[in-house]
Amino acid sequence: MDNIVFDNLKKLLDEKNMVSLHNEIIKLHKFDIANFIDELKSTEAAIVFRMLPKTEAADVFSYLDGDSQENLISAFTDEEVVEVVNDLAADDAIDMLEELPANAVSRVLKLADPDKRNQLNRFLRYPEDSAGRLMNPDYLKLKHNQTVKEALNFIRTNAEPGQILESFYVTDNTRILEGIVSLKTLILSDDDKKIIDVMETDFPFVSTDVDQEEVVHIFRDYDLLTLPVVDKEKRLLGFITVDDAIDALQEEATEDFEKMAGMSPSDRPYLKTSIFKHAKSRVVWLLVLMISGIINGGILERFEHAFIAMPILVTFMPMLTDTGGNAGSQSSTMIIRGMALNELKIKDIWLIVWKELRISVLVGAVLALTNFLRIYLMHPERIMVAIVVSIAMMFIVILAKLLGSILPLLAQALGLDPAIMAAPLITTVVDAIGLITYFLVAEAILGL
Amino acid sequence: MDNIVFDNLKKLLDEKNMVSLHNEIIKLHKFDIANFIDELKSTEAAIVFRMLPKTEAADVFSYLDGDSQENLISAFTDEEVVEVVNDLAADDAIDMLEELPANAVSRVLKLADPDKRNQLNRFLRYPEDSAGRLMNPDYLKLKHNQTVKEALNFIRTNAEPGQILESFYVTDNTRILEGIVSLKTLILSDDDKKIIDVMETDFPFVSTDVDQEEVVHIFRDYDLLTLPVVDKEKRLLGFITVDDAIDALQEEATEDFEKMAGMSPSDRPYLKTSIFKHAKSRVVWLLVLMISGIINGGILERFEHAFIAMPILVTFMPMLTDTGGNAGSQSSTMIIRGMALNELKIKDIWLIVWKELRISVLVGAVLALTNFLRIYLMHPERIMVAIVVSIAMMFIVILAKLLGSILPLLAQALGLDPAIMAAPLITTVVDAIGLITYFLVAEAILGL
Repeated sequence: MDNIVFDNLKKLLDEKNMVSLHNEIIKLHKFDIANFIDELKSTEAAIVFRMLPKTEAADVFSYLDGDSQENLISAFTDEEVVEVVNDLAADDAIDMLEELPANAVSRVLKLADPDKRNQLNRFLRYPEDSAGRLMNPDYLKLKHNQTVKEALNFIRTNAEPGQILESFYVTDNTRILEGIVSLKTLILSDDDKKIIDVMETDFPFVSTDVDQEEVVHIFRDYDLLTLPVVDKEKRLLGFITVDDAIDALQEEATEDFEKMAGMSPSDRPYLKTSIFKHAKSRVVWLLVLMISGIINGGILERFEHAFIAMPILVTFMPMLTDTGGNAGSQSSTMIIRGMALNELKIKDIWLIVWKELRISVLVGAVLALTNFLRIYLMHPERIMVAIVVSIAMMFIVILAKLLGSILPLLAQALGLDPAIMAAPLITTVVDAIGLITYFLVAEAILGL
Repeated sequence: MDNIVFDNLKKLLDEKNMVSLHNEIIKLHKFDIANFIDELKSTEAAIVFRMLPKTEAADVFSYLDGDSQENLISAFTDEEVVEVVNDLAADDAIDMLEELPANAVSRVLKLADPDKRNQLNRFLRYPEDSAGRLMNPDYLKLKHNQTVKEALNFIRTNAEPGQILESFYVTDNTRILEGIVSLKTLILSDDDKKIIDVMETDFPFVSTDVDQEEVVHIFRDYDLLTLPVVDKEKRLLGFITVDDAIDALQEEATEDFEKMAGMSPSDRPYLKTSIFKHAKSRVVWLLVLMISGIINGGILERFEHAFIAMPILVTFMPMLTDTGGNAGSQSSTMIIRGMALNELKIKDIWLIVWKELRISVLVGAVLALTNFLRIYLMHPERIMVAIVVSIAMMFIVILAKLLGSILPLLAQALGLDPAIMAAPLITTVVDAIGLITYFLVAEAILGL
C-alpha cells in the first residue's frame, strides 16, 4: 500500500468520515487493512476493526502485529473476543496466543467455545517451532470410493469462506491418511472416475513434533502448497500451508543471523522491542566472550618479555587476530549455512576438513606474501619481523579455517546449535591460538 | 528418500535389472528421482534419465543440480536436447542456462525451436535476480465476459500436464491484466456467473525488473500462491509461483550470510565448489581488511611510548577490541536483517540511533562494571588500570553500537548493499577507534 492511500485513509478517520472510510477500506487487501490498523492508536484501531465485514475480520486480525492484537483484545467486549477467536484458523490463533501476555491468554481461552478451547490447549502442548504449532486442523476429507463428481459436489457444499482448498485428503474410517488429491486434479479428471484412481499415494507428510526447519526443507524440496500432519498411526491431524512455511523459513534465517552475531533470538520486530529486552539479548554473550578474553590477557602476560624487547611486535597484533577471526568466521558461516540448508551433514566432516585445509593454504599463502612484501618494501630493515609476521599469518589462517569448519560440525554432533560457533566465539578462540602462534614464532626466529 | 530406497535402486542399476529399476523409479516423487540421478556417474545418469516417461522427464530435469544438468546435456543427442528444452518451463530453462558453460548454452539455444529460442533470449535479457527471470510465461487467459462454466470448460480443454492452475488471469484484447480468479473461486461460484463478477481486481503485481527480494516480500505479506508479472502498460507477461519465491528467499538469505562474513556470494553448494573458487571468493575481503589493519598498526606505533611505559596495557587490548567488534556486529546484524525483511527503512535512522544509544549505555555499563570488579578483585593494586580499561570499555561499546547501526543505513542510502557493513568491516573500524579511545583514556588518567 503506498503512502497516498494510507494518508487518505488517515484523513478520513481524523475527519470521522466513517462512510467514506468504510468504502475505501473494504476495497483493500486484508494485509493492507492490517497494516493500516497497525499504525493506529488503540481506540482508533478498534473503531476501524469494527467496520470490517464479519467474513473478513478474523483474516485481517491474523495479519495484525502482536501489539495491535493485544490492544484489540483488551479493547474488545467478551462477545467480540469470542467471535474473533472462533473464526481464526487454529494456527493463526496459536500465533496470537504466543504473543499475548498471560492474563490475555487466560481471558481468550476462558471465552472461547469449549471445542475451540480444547483445540487450542491441545495445540499449545506441541513444542514451539514444531509442525504441530503450524498446522491447520480444518480440512475437508474425501473418501476413496467417491467419484470425482461427488467429491466436487461435496467440496462445493461444505467449503467455508477462507478455507484452504488447494489439496484434499483421502482418509479411511479411522482417519488414517490414504492419499492426497489436488483441486487441479479433480478439475482435470473425468467426472465419474473414482478418487482412488486419481489420488496420489506417494507423498511427503510429517508428524506433529517435527521441527519447522525440517518442514521448510520438505516444502522447498518437493515444491508443495500444503503438507499433511499425522500422528504416530498416520491418522490425519491437519495440514501446513506454504505461507506458514515461508514465515518459518524467514524466522529460522533471522534466528540464525541473530545467534551467529552472538544474540539470543527474538521474534519481535526491532523497533517494537524495548531497549531492556535488546540489552538483555545482547549482554549475555558479550559478557561470556569478555570473560573468556581474560585468557588472551593471560597469554599476553606470558609473552610480556617478547614485546618489551621488541614493542614493534605489538603493532601487528590487531591485524593478525582480526584476519584470523575473519578467516575463521568465513569458514564457520559456510558450514553453518550449509547445515541449515541440509546440504552439509556431519558425515561430510572429512571432506570438509580436507577442503578447508587446501583453501586455507591458498588463502594463507596470498595473505602471507602480500603482508611480507608490504612490510619489507615499506621498511626493508624490518625483514626479520616481516618473516615472523608472515609465517604467523600463514599458520593463523590455516588454524582459523580448520577451527571454523570443525567447531560447528562438532556442535551439531553434540546436539548443540551449530549457529553458536559463529564469528564471535570463533574470533575469541582464534585470537588465543593466534597470539600464541605469533609469539612462539617470534621467539623462535628472533631469539627473544 | 531414505537410504534403503536409494541403495536398493543403486543395486538394481548395478545388476542392470532395468525392468525392476524402471518400476521402482516411476513410483517415486520427481524430486527423489532427481536426487538419485544427482548421485550417479554421467553415463549411468543418462541411462536412468532415459527410462523416465516423457511427461515426467522435463520436470525431473528441472530438479537436478547444475552439474547433473550439464553432464546430461553433453550426453544427450541433439533430439534429446530439443525435447527436454522445449518441455522445460521457461523459468526452469533459464535456471539451467545460468549454470551451464557458454558452449553448452550456445548448443541448447541453437537446437531449441525458434519460438523457444526467442523466448529464452528475451528472458536472458532480464537482469539477474529479477522478477523477469523467475516468471513462467505459460498461463491460461480468461475473458471477463466468459461465464464460470465456460471458463472451467476452457481450462479442462486447454490445460497441459504440469501446468500451474492455481490462478487464472483475466486480460482484455490487448493483453492488459484486468483481474485474477483462483481455481477455488471458480469451483465455489455459480456456473452461470460472469468472470467479471467473481474476479479480484485489487491484487499485487510486479514488473519484470523488480528485484527478487521485493518479490519475496510480496509473497510473504500477501500470502500468495502466484504473482503476475506485467510490462509498463500492465500487459501480462507471465507469473511467478510460490516455489520459486521460496528458492529466492533462501538464496537471498544465503547471499546475506556470505556477504556478512566477508565473502563474495556463490550459488553453488559448498561441496560442489572447487577450492580455487572458494579461495577466490574469500581472499579479496581478507586482503582488504588486512591492508586496512595497517591503520591499526599505525595507531599503535603512535602510542608505543604508552605501552612501553606500562606493558600491562597490552594485555587488555584483545579483550577491548573483541568486545567492541562483537558489540558492533550485533547492532549491524540487527539493522541489516531488519532492512532485508523490510522492517527497517532509512527514514527510521533517528529512531534506531536513539535506541542503539540507550541499549549501548545499558550494555556498556554492565560490561564496564563487571570488568572493573574482575580486575580490581583479582589485582587490587591495579585499580587505576581497572578504571582506565572500564572507561575505555564503556566508550568502545557505545561507539561500536552507534557505528554498527549507522554504517549499514548509510550504505543503503548510498545505494550500496548494507550487508557489506557487517562483522568483518565493523570489527576493523571499531578496532581502530577502540585502540585510540583506550590509549587516550590511558594517557589522560595514567599521565603517560
